[in-house]
Amino acid sequence: MPNFRPILFIVAVVLLALAAMMLIPAAVDFAYGNPDAEVFLYSAAFTAVCGGALALGTRSSRQQGGLSLRQAFLLTPLTWTSTAVFAALPFQFGHFPDLSLNYTNAFFETMSGLTATGATILVGLDRMPEGILLWRALLQWLGGIGIIGVAIAVLPALRVGGMQLFRTESSDRSQKVLPRAQQIAKAIGAIYVGMTTICAACYWLAGMTPFEAVVHALTSLSTGGFSTSDKSMGNFESPALHWLATLFMLLGSLPFVLYVRTLNGQRDALWKDSQVRTFLGFLAAVILPLSVWLALKQGYEFHDALRMVAFNVVSVVTTTGFAYTDYTQWGNLAVGVFFGLTFIGGCTGSTTGGIKIFRFEVMAIVLRTHFLRLVYPRGVFPRQYGSRQLDDDVLGSVVVFFTLFFTAYSVLTIALMALGLDFITSISAAASSLANVGPGLGDVIGPAGTFSALPDSAKWLLSLAMLLGRLELFTVLVLFMPQFWRG
Amino acid sequence: MPNFRPILFIVAVVLLALAAMMLIPAAVDFAYGNPDAEVFLYSAAFTAVCGGALALGTRSSRQQGGLSLRQAFLLTPLTWTSTAVFAALPFQFGHFPDLSLNYTNAFFETMSGLTATGATILVGLDRMPEGILLWRALLQWLGGIGIIGVAIAVLPALRVGGMQLFRTESSDRSQKVLPRAQQIAKAIGAIYVGMTTICAACYWLAGMTPFEAVVHALTSLSTGGFSTSDKSMGNFESPALHWLATLFMLLGSLPFVLYVRTLNGQRDALWKDSQVRTFLGFLAAVILPLSVWLALKQGYEFHDALRMVAFNVVSVVTTTGFAYTDYTQWGNLAVGVFFGLTFIGGCTGSTTGGIKIFRFEVMAIVLRTHFLRLVYPRGVFPRQYGSRQLDDDVLGSVVVFFTLFFTAYSVLTIALMALGLDFITSISAAASSLANVGPGLGDVIGPAGTFSALPDSAKWLLSLAMLLGRLELFTVLVLFMPQFWRG
Repeated sequence: MPNFRPILFIVAVVLLALAAMMLIPAAVDFAYGNPDAEVFLYSAAFTAVCGGALALGTRSSRQQGGLSLRQAFLLTPLTWTSTAVFAALPFQFGHFPDLSLNYTNAFFETMSGLTATGATILVGLDRMPEGILLWRALLQWLGGIGIIGVAIAVLPALRVGGMQLFRTESSDRSQKVLPRAQQIAKAIGAIYVGMTTICAACYWLAGMTPFEAVVHALTSLSTGGFSTSDKSMGNFESPALHWLATLFMLLGSLPFVLYVRTLNGQRDALWKDSQVRTFLGFLAAVILPLSVWLALKQGYEFHDALRMVAFNVVSVVTTTGFAYTDYTQWGNLAVGVFFGLTFIGGCTGSTTGGIKIFRFEVMAIVLRTHFLRLVYPRGVFPRQYGSRQLDDDVLGSVVVFFTLFFTAYSVLTIALMALGLDFITSISAAASSLANVGPGLGDVIGPAGTFSALPDSAKWLLSLAMLLGRLELFTVLVLFMPQFWRG
Repeated sequence: MPNFRPILFIVAVVLLALAAMMLIPAAVDFAYGNPDAEVFLYSAAFTAVCGGALALGTRSSRQQGGLSLRQAFLLTPLTWTSTAVFAALPFQFGHFPDLSLNYTNAFFETMSGLTATGATILVGLDRMPEGILLWRALLQWLGGIGIIGVAIAVLPALRVGGMQLFRTESSDRSQKVLPRAQQIAKAIGAIYVGMTTICAACYWLAGMTPFEAVVHALTSLSTGGFSTSDKSMGNFESPALHWLATLFMLLGSLPFVLYVRTLNGQRDALWKDSQVRTFLGFLAAVILPLSVWLALKQGYEFHDALRMVAFNVVSVVTTTGFAYTDYTQWGNLAVGVFFGLTFIGGCTGSTTGGIKIFRFEVMAIVLRTHFLRLVYPRGVFPRQYGSRQLDDDVLGSVVVFFTLFFTAYSVLTIALMALGLDFITSISAAASSLANVGPGLGDVIGPAGTFSALPDSAKWLLSLAMLLGRLELFTVLVLFMPQFWRG
């Protein structure tokens, strides 16, 4: 049994920070004269008291030499879950024009926020008080920076899903640029805040109100996808806005550590990265032919088709999930392509979910080597990724990640069907929540629908799936092993 | 470039055998006075002439020391494809009461037969001439014994999808029982013929006409699933028949080499086999709870629910695809479970398709080891399968097989949607054809429908998918590597 106290102390600190964050929507609601200001204040107070008590109870337990392996495994899911438990309070007690939420709905919406998924159970967003809209966006923004930190600092050390590939890389190379991990963290935080600010300014200049601009900036960079309108980005008719959103979703899906390197003088850091090149190449290879096809099929001008396709493809591949045109109306080809894109994800070390580009790159190397070995059983084939040799440990981890992802996806689909959901809702909800995209397919949860009609049991299951996907499966699943808790 | 001539000689011999087989439906149609007798005779003559010419042109080329690795890779897909090309002739030129077939339909039906898939484009089976019904069944039966041979003699040597696990096993152990591979082949052939005969006799005693009994015996043991009626097994109301069909599908899905061992005195050969135990345990774990659920939900007697569930589960898991009750009417849970079961498959060395049980067993070991290593990075964990140690080569092959299967499945789904098929038809047709099951889901190709309404392009794509699945992917895909044809 691992020693819980040092982890609980970290959780307590996070809860205290969460309480402080709640003061932002409280202030906004106070400024707008919304009754929710009080709800946020009470929620902040309650969270602060709980977090404070926990901090006091565990503060003497700080241990030497960092966390043990098991403590590190426990830390991430525990932090995400306990944050969600408290962050859900404003949803449950808030004043909505059209509905009131039970705790299941509140928790689902919160988990969807903190995992930057963007699946929603809310309708009537356009008439919603400002505080709650900002709170949703803030949750995605916090979840986004949180996962960048986890991907850089925690997952490589835990050797999760091939992330050990980035272990030595982040320490080796960046030591030439920045001396310490803490400084990288600060630099990334500054870049995240800076980019969000620039994004909000751009959105405002392109026609959004300042409030809309801030909310959408928070949910673009975090590739989360919550909006201020039931029509999502479809509420805004400016083509410039659509291109800007496409750009900032894309910026949110590149490895943030490369931004740090670029700003530190390594000008080609982004362009020389294998993941970034493959990612951009892949997007181009999907967007261009699909735009031509759409322009020919629907008789759009090419630049309009390109804008619509680029926005929707980037929205799905970066796991943002902003909707703006209902691509399921483009015909079965589009449905098939977008369903396939659900699984891809962006680069690791970004705010995106999904399987992620580097795993596809590693998998392509595995398949290529395997086929060559079938024909040349005694041949030796180099397994190179970027500048480094891939060892069996990384290859095995990546391959197991794929297996686990599709196993979880299958089990989840069948479980949702067992709860009475139809086939297309189940299979697309499973894919979309595991990959942290947001909307699914079909009449219920498609780009034009919401998750509100699902039974409570399905909402809890999908909350778990969003967490599983966000924390790259292993970190959560390892806790279900009896061996984890023994000895 | 491999030397084609020795392979073409084998293909020629197979074509001559195929021509001889065509005389059986010719004789049957002659006896029943059907006009198709002539069609079969002409097809047989044409096939015999082509096969004979090919044999004469390549006979001098028999080489010493068996086939090379590349020749062996080429042999299997080439044999299957060229057999299908000729075996399709009677479908194209036959006299059907309700329809006439173009070559696409004829080839699809033939490939569905030879791969023992059981997807059909025919309607009006109940009014079909006897010869063509028998021909369909014979194709499945031949495809069934063919794949047993390939799984025992070819795939292990090619190290395809972890089949090297069975390489030493079949040579090592059985040498104690039978001295030579040829004798094993003869023994398996005799068992296959014997079981089919017993099955036909049982079906006849349970109420089928002799003709129906023979056709269904041929398609039960081969886990193919073609029938003499549009209603498939739903045409027969005898509960005894349903149980008999369940039994013989099951017998067709166990490793045939174990029957040889059992008959040679190793009484516990079947029961001591890890694959067989896992397979039967898995079936019980699915059938029993589902029967209880169905009995409670629909108010059936338990023994009726058990019979219906056992029949349908065994039909799908063994990749037979006999229909008898439309399980998609049982609600979304049933649809989800049966869709999941589509992928499983039976034991290797049997007539079944799908991923196959031993790969799930190996994958479970891989996952278990991987999780243990996450928690105990320096631990050493045994990877035991049955009595043997799993080496990295086997583990890698199995894992790559899973990846390749789901990649092919995804690509196929999207390709079918690009051809205009709806989501549920595409995703279930892809799964069902790759796993050689037969029917899909939805209104078009569900247990109550047929594949006739699909566009020709989709039929060619699905024919390729059935071949891919039947020959365990690698054997076909390796031919698309430029390196295969070089040097």
